[in-house]
Amino acid sequence: MLGRTYDREVCSAARALEIVGERWSLLVLRNAAFAGMTRFTDFQTSLGIAPNVLAARLEHFVETGLMATAAGAGGHQTYHLTEQGLDFKPVIIALTEWGDRWAAPDGPPIVYEHEGCGGRVSLALQCDKCTERLRPRNVTARKTAVMKRLQERRAARRSGNA
Amino acid sequence: MLGRTYDREVCSAARALEIVGERWSLLVLRNAAFAGMTRFTDFQTSLGIAPNVLAARLEHFVETGLMATAAGAGGHQTYHLTEQGLDFKPVIIALTEWGDRWAAPDGPPIVYEHEGCGGRVSLALQCDKCTERLRPRNVTARKTAVMKRLQERRAARRSGNA
Repeated sequence: MLGRTYDREVCSAARALEIVGERWSLLVLRNAAFAGMTRFTDFQTSLGIAPNVLAARLEHFVETGLMATAAGAGGHQTYHLTEQGLDFKPVIIALTEWGDRWAAPDGPPIVYEHEGCGGRVSLALQCDKCTERLRPRNVTARKTAVMKRLQERRAARRSGNA
Repeated sequence: MLGRTYDREVCSAARALEIVGERWSLLVLRNAAFAGMTRFTDFQTSLGIAPNVLAARLEHFVETGLMATAAGAGGHQTYHLTEQGLDFKPVIIALTEWGDRWAAPDGPPIVYEHEGCGGRVSLALQCDKCTERLRPRNVTARKTAVMKRLQERRAARRSGNA
């Protein structure tokens, strides 16, 4: 589990990576989110992933609330993304957009569309104070009071354990 | 290398994960992109990562064009994000936003801001045909002609190798 690896991090991106940072995790989510897969055998065949690894990933997603199981046709269990799991779509889209720009010399293999409307979908950085088109280099990170409080709590716990 | 793992994938998200999907990769990029780190020792101390793992990650980033090296003060090599590396910021922001929503019970430890302006920055799904506020569940993926061509090319290569 990555949980232990990133344990000293006070960071929401690290928390997210604890859940989807294992090898194959994001591709399993991608197939559930954008190819509508629900069956173990479909994930397994499409990804060519070892069954024990796939079973571990799906179990982890169910445990962490990204997926819920249901009884499918023929008695086979099926896996369905919850709201929390569907909410990873922007992460997959962000990765796709990077790959399209920097690692797709033949052009994008897929495009994202607005269901029903058919418009092309992309991610945009938005500022809540101005309407300027933001570029990644103009985005900075600022620590909040929450960060300070959590870091102090961790330091206190460490010195308590010492 | 994940390259070999995801080799049968025709997918820009998988291509991106080949470059940043290893453990610690995205947190190294995060510290370079948002904490302005450039020195090996700063990455090492802040992340508590094994020096050999960190060295492998940085070397991989230089090889793949996400970072470039420079001669720092005292003769130590420093690592700097290129345009290609800075362009991973939206991926880190998307992970942070997911973590803030689903794995930050105390609130967000950091916020993203528009440099100079000070406005709060977030990622938004945009449709190029309508102005409706898009939700992740309304985004679908459609295969392009590029996907078909690349899949055919791969199939031909496989049957040629058989």
